[in-house]
Amino acid sequence: MYPDVNRDTSGLTHATRILSCDEALVTDLPRPYHPAMFPFEVTHRDGPARRGKLTTPHGCVDTPVFMPVGTCATVKGVTPDQLRATQAQMILANTYHLHLRPGPQVIADLGGLHQFMGWDGPMLTDSGGFQVFSLTQLNKVTDEGVSFRSTIDGATVWLDAPTVIDIQNKLGADVIMVFDECPPLPSDRATLERAVDRSIRWAGQCKEAHHRDDQALFAIVQGGLEIDLRQRCAAALVDIGFEGYAIGGLSVGETHEQMVATLSPTTKCLPQDRPRYLMGVGTPKDMLAAVQAGVDMFDCTLPTRNGRNSQAFTATGYLKMRNEQYRTDDGPLEVGCACYTCQHFSRAYIRHMFNAGEMLGPTLTSIHNLSFFQRFMRRVRELIVENSLARIVEEFPIAANSGDGQEES
Amino acid sequence: MYPDVNRDTSGLTHATRILSCDEALVTDLPRPYHPAMFPFEVTHRDGPARRGKLTTPHGCVDTPVFMPVGTCATVKGVTPDQLRATQAQMILANTYHLHLRPGPQVIADLGGLHQFMGWDGPMLTDSGGFQVFSLTQLNKVTDEGVSFRSTIDGATVWLDAPTVIDIQNKLGADVIMVFDECPPLPSDRATLERAVDRSIRWAGQCKEAHHRDDQALFAIVQGGLEIDLRQRCAAALVDIGFEGYAIGGLSVGETHEQMVATLSPTTKCLPQDRPRYLMGVGTPKDMLAAVQAGVDMFDCTLPTRNGRNSQAFTATGYLKMRNEQYRTDDGPLEVGCACYTCQHFSRAYIRHMFNAGEMLGPTLTSIHNLSFFQRFMRRVRELIVENSLARIVEEFPIAANSGDGQEES
Repeated sequence: MYPDVNRDTSGLTHATRILSCDEALVTDLPRPYHPAMFPFEVTHRDGPARRGKLTTPHGCVDTPVFMPVGTCATVKGVTPDQLRATQAQMILANTYHLHLRPGPQVIADLGGLHQFMGWDGPMLTDSGGFQVFSLTQLNKVTDEGVSFRSTIDGATVWLDAPTVIDIQNKLGADVIMVFDECPPLPSDRATLERAVDRSIRWAGQCKEAHHRDDQALFAIVQGGLEIDLRQRCAAALVDIGFEGYAIGGLSVGETHEQMVATLSPTTKCLPQDRPRYLMGVGTPKDMLAAVQAGVDMFDCTLPTRNGRNSQAFTATGYLKMRNEQYRTDDGPLEVGCACYTCQHFSRAYIRHMFNAGEMLGPTLTSIHNLSFFQRFMRRVRELIVENSLARIVEEFPIAANSGDGQEES
Repeated sequence: MYPDVNRDTSGLTHATRILSCDEALVTDLPRPYHPAMFPFEVTHRDGPARRGKLTTPHGCVDTPVFMPVGTCATVKGVTPDQLRATQAQMILANTYHLHLRPGPQVIADLGGLHQFMGWDGPMLTDSGGFQVFSLTQLNKVTDEGVSFRSTIDGATVWLDAPTVIDIQNKLGADVIMVFDECPPLPSDRATLERAVDRSIRWAGQCKEAHHRDDQALFAIVQGGLEIDLRQRCAAALVDIGFEGYAIGGLSVGETHEQMVATLSPTTKCLPQDRPRYLMGVGTPKDMLAAVQAGVDMFDCTLPTRNGRNSQAFTATGYLKMRNEQYRTDDGPLEVGCACYTCQHFSRAYIRHMFNAGEMLGPTLTSIHNLSFFQRFMRRVRELIVENSLARIVEEFPIAANSGDGQEES
């Protein structure tokens, strides 16, 4: 079930974390304990870009992978069956939202997040750090943790490293994240330095607190756009040793070019033999640049958020489905797309659904967008194998375009 | 494809409508012309209750049948695949809404309503009469037709019998309805008499105007709670001759007992060998009483409307899924239910979806409710065959309960 893989042991040393079988588990393990439950194999390279496979207790994941976001234990507007049909392999849920509602103990009592939301594939939960620092009114931030007001009921909530791990142990995702401080960009250097120091400290506390061997713990590199801070943070986290490494604190206000400039210097400090995850990214253009810098995993709400707002992705650009031009358009959202939406419905019908305020508009467009993101990433993987990733922009001109709002020409 | 059936020719004479093959069709026929495209066979009886089969160009329908409502060319919140999985055989769409948006010509140009909305099974469109008289601000009602203000943009719209048939010919449903005047209840006798006279007149005009032989035209009996008016209306419509007969103008303000008292005297005036359709009904209790009065077809928004409002149907009553009592309830909405929702999700998860404002709450609850209505009607059909329909209330106590808001005990 978890075959030996040929680890690429070049690059920096990866300190293996070994926990005893006897350590108390928050919930019963759904399957037998394995000492190395999360093998990661890089099978092909195209420059720094990597084609790999991450194995989790809930199945294998082909990397580079795009993970749809199921914030509140649902990828908005689609059932798990529909989500699986988009070819999604791994999904993400938000610790912040699930902690506030319905609460981790409720989910644990109901068998964990997989069972709760009916998704039996690989899953990742973030740490809540990003949401706490970007969504909430902060009361107090210390080296010990963060006090903030709940966005649901205004209640004061305290989060620190052990608490965040306890929550994620209860949720039971395959990959969980350390608690981090995520400052906005631009931030001054002192703020970024303090965030790095705290994030390193909290990462160590998270590793101490983590108690489930069927969950991989990933660290998060902070440091804003300051390359030396990124590198110091990465080195410190690698020294502690984690099953994977995320790059956080990007896609928070900086330009595409600023983001890209930060990536390669950071990934160079991360182990070759463990997965790298760029959090909250992004557009096809952002993801392509990150893959070319050696990143393996992505998550973003773009396919579903834009889908709800009637924006459909195609290889050449975006369609705004409320537009009059689609009133009698009998073509699919995208010619050649194999998704359920494109196989069954016309642009005219989808336009009508949005104009009539029908739920099927968001649902069908989200299904297409999610399928589009998977198709894009599948093609990225294929082209890495063929050693010709740069050709992706010929097939997906959208990956050369500027961002998240450009219409199809 | 359309086998001969042994028609029950007892009861009143059914004047067969025969149109020539040569008559101009609004759109190309999707299949060869048949002179009798809508055979209806009553196979079993239990008192006045009938178990039958209606054949349409898009497939057979087991009666008594419950038709989910797809007002704007979508059964709200569910895809055609999900709808089919609820065991729905035939669905309804609203001429009023589709006439206003996106317009019948758009739908005709896109291949008709079946293709537009991705439903390849039997389908019925109503005439718009009910919506015009219940939803809109009326400008003028004459013997020729109705002028009203669009609920979408306030524009003045004119509908009359030939227009309503033209719209439905363009939409292309298997069963279409005559234009009728549908007064609210209570109404004075003069109002009801005038509505009957107009409805008869318009029915004749509709039959004249109807030009597609792959669409069955059903008449609508009006008359409020006045038995003699109902009987006069029915006799006049039967004299004109239609492929089926609906009972309209009920479920518009009267009590359950008043509705039931009207049904049997009306169905007795309708041909034994053609289907009878009670429009806009209803609750399990209403449908059971109507089946026991000899009705074969039903439609209602209840499963989806209540589903969106977090109310789940069960055999013993209703569940309000926002209630605290379901916070950690790991059971399905209804034990023993085979629907997608009950097979995959707990009450606690569905409660969480509603509390978090997630689309999956309405979708999953609608799927269950639609499945429940089909299961109820399937059991009605089985018990008619066993000549023991009265036993249905033992299995579905909800069908003995008072209405549409009672909670499970």
